[in-house]
Amino acid sequence: MRPLRLSSDGWSIEILDQTRLPHEVVVARITTLDQVVEAIATMQVRGAPLIGLTGAYGVCLALMTDESDAALDDAVSALLGARPTAVNLRHAVEAVREAARAADPGARAGAAYARAAELCDIEIAACRAIGDYGLGILQQLHTGAATKGGGPVRVLTHCNAGWLATLEYGTALAPVYRAHEVGLPVHVWVDETRPRSQGWLTAWELGASGVSHTVVSDTSAGYLLQRGEVDVVIVGTDRTLRTGDVCNKIGTYLVALAAGAARIPFYAAVPSSSIDWSLDDWGEIPIEERPADEVRWVRGRDPDGALTRVAPGPSDGVVRNVAFDVTPARLVTGLITERGVCTASRRGLLALFPERRRR
Amino acid sequence: MRPLRLSSDGWSIEILDQTRLPHEVVVARITTLDQVVEAIATMQVRGAPLIGLTGAYGVCLALMTDESDAALDDAVSALLGARPTAVNLRHAVEAVREAARAADPGARAGAAYARAAELCDIEIAACRAIGDYGLGILQQLHTGAATKGGGPVRVLTHCNAGWLATLEYGTALAPVYRAHEVGLPVHVWVDETRPRSQGWLTAWELGASGVSHTVVSDTSAGYLLQRGEVDVVIVGTDRTLRTGDVCNKIGTYLVALAAGAARIPFYAAVPSSSIDWSLDDWGEIPIEERPADEVRWVRGRDPDGALTRVAPGPSDGVVRNVAFDVTPARLVTGLITERGVCTASRRGLLALFPERRRR
Repeated sequence: MRPLRLSSDGWSIEILDQTRLPHEVVVARITTLDQVVEAIATMQVRGAPLIGLTGAYGVCLALMTDESDAALDDAVSALLGARPTAVNLRHAVEAVREAARAADPGARAGAAYARAAELCDIEIAACRAIGDYGLGILQQLHTGAATKGGGPVRVLTHCNAGWLATLEYGTALAPVYRAHEVGLPVHVWVDETRPRSQGWLTAWELGASGVSHTVVSDTSAGYLLQRGEVDVVIVGTDRTLRTGDVCNKIGTYLVALAAGAARIPFYAAVPSSSIDWSLDDWGEIPIEERPADEVRWVRGRDPDGALTRVAPGPSDGVVRNVAFDVTPARLVTGLITERGVCTASRRGLLALFPERRRR
Repeated sequence: MRPLRLSSDGWSIEILDQTRLPHEVVVARITTLDQVVEAIATMQVRGAPLIGLTGAYGVCLALMTDESDAALDDAVSALLGARPTAVNLRHAVEAVREAARAADPGARAGAAYARAAELCDIEIAACRAIGDYGLGILQQLHTGAATKGGGPVRVLTHCNAGWLATLEYGTALAPVYRAHEVGLPVHVWVDETRPRSQGWLTAWELGASGVSHTVVSDTSAGYLLQRGEVDVVIVGTDRTLRTGDVCNKIGTYLVALAAGAARIPFYAAVPSSSIDWSLDDWGEIPIEERPADEVRWVRGRDPDGALTRVAPGPSDGVVRNVAFDVTPARLVTGLITERGVCTASRRGLLALFPERRRR
């Protein structure tokens, strides 16, 4: 199962509707740019890498009806407006635009689809490599002093950075899946991740693969870290600056503070598609604020099994819904990239990505 | 309105059922010890001071049917077993037991009711005094550099430590209510406080009094503090040690870490009923773990207005539900007690409570 795939017609795409998960597995077919924008904005597809790849196909779909430069630019603009924080979306749609522009008239759509498919392959390879490098960290923790008595390596994660957020393996969860594959015992503390409860997506993923896990409220991370019940924190990222500052789902910063206070390693799993090489100041990252109703209403199954929603407070309560925060590099033990693990710093990143040095 | 009062019959009690708030205002009459234990355990009454006062009446109700020493001890044991973390419960039920024991045979229940009423008066007076001392802090922040441009003093709070958690004013919210009374502009950031969503109780209280407020997910506190959108954090406490370590609703520690990182003052409002003078090691505080269903299910109104619940994940998902955490004294700017504000330290507390010095 994949959260995004090209349909058998060779041009439309099919997505797993993540607003229905973990309750129902519903595949939606998408045939237009507008539908892609809508799917991204409403989080039918979510997760920084997956948003990027879906956006890439959004450009392709736009080209199916109009191959002009204007249509291409309009598509890119519409997609970039769907969700501002994850840099992957910009990287992916701009890559597809570039490929289309370089193609001959009449061959633009084909070039775009080829580039989108290539981006998918690159992302899958990056996730696999992140899994292998992260596995090394988990193996060290397992053999090291961190886990006394031979119990599992206890990983805490926030939000969902599994295969649902990418295509395969995931980013933060890739090391966990690799550990499970090679028989290294692992247990995952899963933050609920209000307001959208993506923790339950992570639990659903892990459960389907037979990985031991426990869901906790977001308020619990400090307790677990303070009491020595976590060996390592691994999270994904929506945008990591070349400075090593990590922008990720709201609440990540609190987890990082608690990990720092407890001297527990805190890693971000960072495919290069999530690295922003242009910003130095995390204050300049556009932080999305989402509808108040996401906080006011909680979706799920009622006791009769019907999918509905409830408001724990008044349905018109005054609410603010900030979707991301930034964890400063000083709280990040390391970045797990597809080229290896580095310190969360310009020096660390440039050692792995020397082509990004400014000439 | 009060969350607890003696009925007009002079012996049974009436409570505001807080499991129905903020949706419905339902008063429940309670006539037996067992009902009191049940009301405390299921959080129909909640909030450390209120648990203590309700427990005090639980002892009284037990004495209405049996005034023996054995019955008295059984009542105390049953009540202490209802919720382990808040020290107020122990303080209150032991105070009532002492009063009953000191009374003549046949007069025990009367002595117990008199003592319970006295404890209520003491708690109300403590909350008022905390409000006045806390108001001083808010006034300083308002005139000081913290609030540029004349905006409101922005207070962040976690859980509910308002009048619903005490009898009047509350503890953490008492300074806010006093500020509102004297015309000092104030805005409250209200943490949702999963899993029980007590933030909506706080919002309900504040809304009823016309105090400006905004509810945010628990994951948001780090963002708000990091970005300079909070001037002061004030929380309640279920048990504050004489060392100044503050045990409070799960998630408080994360807020304190973020306040510390942002150099924003973090206060606990601590009536002396919440001070544990016997423990020095916060690791010895009994931390309650509550039913997994509190995390699995979220209660509220559905779109048709019916009170129900939904599970955002599987109704049998593996969950852990720790109810409290401990904020070490080093992260606490000060304790607001009924005798004044002190540093979160043995020295600070003993300066205000010299009668607690060990001889």
